[in-house]
Amino acid sequence: KFPTAAVTPSAYITSFLIHCRIMRPDDANIAGNVHGGTILKMIEEAGAIISTRHCNSQSGEHCVAALARVERTDFLSPMCIGEVAHVSAEITYTSKHSVEVQVNVLSENILTGAKRVTNRATLWYVPLSLKNVDKVLEVPPIQYAWKELEEDGKKRYEEQKLERLVTKQRNGDIIFPVFNPEPYTVGYSQSSLIHLVGPSDCTLHGFVHGGVTMKLMDEVAGIVAARHCKTNIVTASVDAINFHEKIKKGCVITISGRMTFTSNKSMEIEVFVDADPFVDEPKERYRAVSAFFTYVSLSKEGKPVPVPQLVETEDEKRRFEDGKGRYLQTKAKRQVQMQPLTQQ
Amino acid sequence: KFPTAAVTPSAYITSFLIHCRIMRPDDANIAGNVHGGTILKMIEEAGAIISTRHCNSQSGEHCVAALARVERTDFLSPMCIGEVAHVSAEITYTSKHSVEVQVNVLSENILTGAKRVTNRATLWYVPLSLKNVDKVLEVPPIQYAWKELEEDGKKRYEEQKLERLVTKQRNGDIIFPVFNPEPYTVGYSQSSLIHLVGPSDCTLHGFVHGGVTMKLMDEVAGIVAARHCKTNIVTASVDAINFHEKIKKGCVITISGRMTFTSNKSMEIEVFVDADPFVDEPKERYRAVSAFFTYVSLSKEGKPVPVPQLVETEDEKRRFEDGKGRYLQTKAKRQVQMQPLTQQ
Amino acid sequence: KFPTAAVTPSAYITSFLIHCRIMRPDDANIAGNVHGGTILKMIEEAGAIISTRHCNSQSGEHCVAALARVERTDFLSPMCIGEVAHVSAEITYTSKHSVEVQVNVLSENILTGAKRVTNRATLWYVPLSLKNVDKVLEVPPIQYAWKELEEDGKKRYEEQKLERLVTKQRNGDIIFPVFNPEPYTVGYSQSSLIHLVGPSDCTLHGFVHGGVTMKLMDEVAGIVAARHCKTNIVTASVDAINFHEKIKKGCVITISGRMTFTSNKSMEIEVFVDADPFVDEPKERYRAVSAFFTYVSLSKEGKPVPVPQLVETEDEKRRFEDGKGRYLQTKAKRQVQMQPLTQQ
Repeated sequence: KFPTAAVTPSAYITSFLIHCRIMRPDDANIAGNVHGGTILKMIEEAGAIISTRHCNSQSGEHCVAALARVERTDFLSPMCIGEVAHVSAEITYTSKHSVEVQVNVLSENILTGAKRVTNRATLWYVPLSLKNVDKVLEVPPIQYAWKELEEDGKKRYEEQKLERLVTKQRNGDIIFPVFNPEPYTVGYSQSSLIHLVGPSDCTLHGFVHGGVTMKLMDEVAGIVAARHCKTNIVTASVDAINFHEKIKKGCVITISGRMTFTSNKSMEIEVFVDADPFVDEPKERYRAVSAFFTYVSLSKEGKPVPVPQLVETEDEKRRFEDGKGRYLQTKAKRQVQMQPLTQQ
Repeated sequence: KFPTAAVTPSAYITSFLIHCRIMRPDDANIAGNVHGGTILKMIEEAGAIISTRHCNSQSGEHCVAALARVERTDFLSPMCIGEVAHVSAEITYTSKHSVEVQVNVLSENILTGAKRVTNRATLWYVPLSLKNVDKVLEVPPIQYAWKELEEDGKKRYEEQKLERLVTKQRNGDIIFPVFNPEPYTVGYSQSSLIHLVGPSDCTLHGFVHGGVTMKLMDEVAGIVAARHCKTNIVTASVDAINFHEKIKKGCVITISGRMTFTSNKSMEIEVFVDADPFVDEPKERYRAVSAFFTYVSLSKEGKPVPVPQLVETEDEKRRFEDGKGRYLQTKAKRQVQMQPLTQQ
Repeated sequence: KFPTAAVTPSAYITSFLIHCRIMRPDDANIAGNVHGGTILKMIEEAGAIISTRHCNSQSGEHCVAALARVERTDFLSPMCIGEVAHVSAEITYTSKHSVEVQVNVLSENILTGAKRVTNRATLWYVPLSLKNVDKVLEVPPIQYAWKELEEDGKKRYEEQKLERLVTKQRNGDIIFPVFNPEPYTVGYSQSSLIHLVGPSDCTLHGFVHGGVTMKLMDEVAGIVAARHCKTNIVTASVDAINFHEKIKKGCVITISGRMTFTSNKSMEIEVFVDADPFVDEPKERYRAVSAFFTYVSLSKEGKPVPVPQLVETEDEKRRFEDGKGRYLQTKAKRQVQMQPLTQQ
């Protein structure tokens, strides 16, 4: 997993990156479990830095790498306050206009020295010109150790490109407040959060970092999950997220979440991000991102416990069936992928 | 409290706003009680967003709504780490150049589902042009469900306008450090805090958000109260605050607090905010805001306990008598207002 | 320590500054001890404000004071969550182009009223023109109460000037990751952290505040120390730090730390800060700052405990011997300085 002696220092500096950070009380819930959103934000920061560095490694027009997509991410084991997160990022594929970054997160218990894999994530970035944010620049190609690595990368590239086209259609729904909802219905736990986009949320272009958006999405999803099952809850996974539309500094963003599905021990929550460029733009409010988060409910001892079943209306039943479909599909995929993760 | 089915979605989006956030360790004191300042900041954020959105809802010159005044605010019940704050904001009155926003804050214990009203606040905003910050724009009028609502609003508008004129006169005092103060004198607990105004404290205009200022004011007042009575203390109320002078990015602000009055179980603390545009401005240091905060002292079990009485000099006696006047006036007002809160 | 009645208010305002802040959970480690980096950041903020204010006190070109050097700083006693930090800063010497600021930090236990000295720090600032960041302006001279104060200050000024020239030569090393390190070797605990410099990290010039850099350096050093000895660790001291090169907004900074020496109860950690202006600059990655931090390991009861000895390679042995030299030198100096601290 670490570069071998054969890698020269200068190549090493652009194509590989290591980062440590101690987890603080504000990164975690009251039970001491670090929020999935905090981890997603760290992952995205590492990805943005390594891909921006790579895309500026050849002389030419300067650029910032913008997050286009995060592949489905599983949270394999919880991280706690006081542990050190080790984030390592590596560029694994480059197409003409995009960069694939693989990020691994380990959590280290400093007192015992024990390390556990927390996450593996794959992110896609696109270099946007600093002078003209609508211009996508070319990506310098990377060298592959084996030809197979390039071919596998190309396959992943084609797959995600297709999926991004498909999801562009969805995205119509709006969540309205419900007056006096029944327990365990969708309206009972649905929640929303507003955020005024400030300078520290933004890239050099003045657009919101993908990691900031994901952290807020996880925050809303966590509130929905906790209101539904009234226990300590943790993020188990996030479905692939596509970032179709950028969000500009000065916008107000509304992040809303609602429960779409419950299995015996997990909950699926759909999260929408709507951007309202309400001040200096002629633009209308628009849907910027949407995603599905899966949470599990934990007992005081940290063991998964059953989740109260969702009570649905007609409309919600359709969404429940869709959610069940995704749940079974993921379960099936996971069984297929149980062979050891080699290069991935 | 929630909009009825008769409200159309688009009207709903501009005139009503809901926001949830989990309270984190940094939002609270060591006893786990959320700081009044954290709540005031959330309230002001919601107010700024809804009024800015409303003032930009008609085509014309773009603007940002700036906080002009917050009416007296009572903290009815404490909020704790891990609870979810629900903030809902609504525009309740518009004059030609100002907007009145009512904000309600509920705290929800996620584990039990119990909700309690924490605060009700009334804020006044003024729309300032984005191109010329000294130009106040016109506010689009809202529709009232009943004629009485408009009349009541107009009355509130006239009252606060008068009060704002009056307070513009006060504001002369400066707090000097005292060498070797006696226990329980004013000098014994007086405190000050400096803050360099950074970009994330500011609006799109580059002026400090009212909520940021109020949070810092509560922080200083809390230090004064804790140093006086050496117990767990919580914000009980804040007197009306007028924001006469804007504070610009790059200023240093000094927030100073001193005790002015103690009753049996409460303390009144006066807080001054002085802005020092010390770098790129020819302007002198000036008083930007001042306010009175009331705190109560709590035992380890969370019950109010007696407060050590303030020991005063001649000058301080005058301020004590003034404080006593405000205390009795508030007490009397509260008894009058004990009839159910209808619209307001 | 406080100004006497003879000082007039206006002189008081520019040459003296007091600041209070409550320590929050995020300021501390899991054992509740406030990070040395948090304290260094508060110290530097106070120093930057007072020296910027002083340098702008005469009409002329406007400027911001940039941190040039921090003298060796000892952490005399730990500070805990819930305590109030009192920071007081005073200008003690001015040369033609630099300002010396003395900062004292007290920690106050609000519940008992007990106060302890936590730190005394000396910082040097240089006023840079707001219009042209490469232009150093002249500093208005201060008045000294006694002639001796000026002479002592001049001596300190000459000493630090010399030391700054010397350290400019060092700074060559790079830290590479080690694959599968043996326990208690340098590679076993070495760590690095990346940070994308955002607007809230920066001064009005768009350069990183010295305090922000020092806080990140302490964070990395703390991770190295904790990984080595797997206990609760606290910052004991920081060697003099020189800020030769500014770091600009938009840079990525990599902060790396490695252990260089262990005595019976302390560890010395070398920290490097490398800035990579990877986007809009033709500049190469460069070494911006480096420093030595000393940590001690504490038992659960807060008593110092023995530290596992460092296992070294040939190269590391040389660094160990250098570290031992610094340790013995400091120990000797401390015994000389045990006479009461008068003015300084």
